[in-house]
Amino acid sequence: MSDCLFCKIVKGEIPCSLVYQDDAVMAFKDINPLAPTHLLVIPKQHLASALDINAHNSAVIAHMFEVIPQIAKEAGIAEKGFRIVTNIGKDGGQIVQHLHFHILGGRHLEPSLG
Amino acid sequence: MSDCLFCKIVKGEIPCSLVYQDDAVMAFKDINPLAPTHLLVIPKQHLASALDINAHNSAVIAHMFEVIPQIAKEAGIAEKGFRIVTNIGKDGGQIVQHLHFHILGGRHLEPSLG
Repeated sequence: MSDCLFCKIVKGEIPCSLVYQDDAVMAFKDINPLAPTHLLVIPKQHLASALDINAHNSAVIAHMFEVIPQIAKEAGIAEKGFRIVTNIGKDGGQIVQHLHFHILGGRHLEPSLG
Repeated sequence: MSDCLFCKIVKGEIPCSLVYQDDAVMAFKDINPLAPTHLLVIPKQHLASALDINAHNSAVIAHMFEVIPQIAKEAGIAEKGFRIVTNIGKDGGQIVQHLHFHILGGRHLEPSLG
């Protein structure tokens, strides 16, 4: 998607504070952090949101959740705990229309979930 | 896990308001809803949290994310949007030590994410 912010980050057209990448996944720091640690984990392929996940593309989701423990450990938040969030659509508060999982940690997170 | 609340729900030893199930996944209403729609999606196999996901068990995560769009559509929250959250450990606010994804919708969710 030529006009997608995260696709531009994947292509290197926009810089990011990278913390992890492989062939299918990237993780980088959120530029507007809501917690001491706030990372975004995205698939390199463009999926608009979790509503676009299906049996043909779900392998990348499995892979993202395989690498998240490693990312959390390297960020120093695995032991105390963290939260994984993905927002879908307007009610969910989704801002960038490219599937991304927020990884939040480094402080006690409120139980409200939004 | 014999003392796990969600394993007891999977075995039918504790009732739940079921909205979806198949061989690997169950979805039911949260008994303490934080939004007009608040569902929990769990793997039937016991995984303590997202930190326990690895290449050997991640297929169930892919499957969970394949069925979530269908669950959201049937709950009437897919069009307006929703949020998917999983809490890990103390800082994350994890209460039940069996991996579960919260599905929250039916109102505009706050952008704070906790």
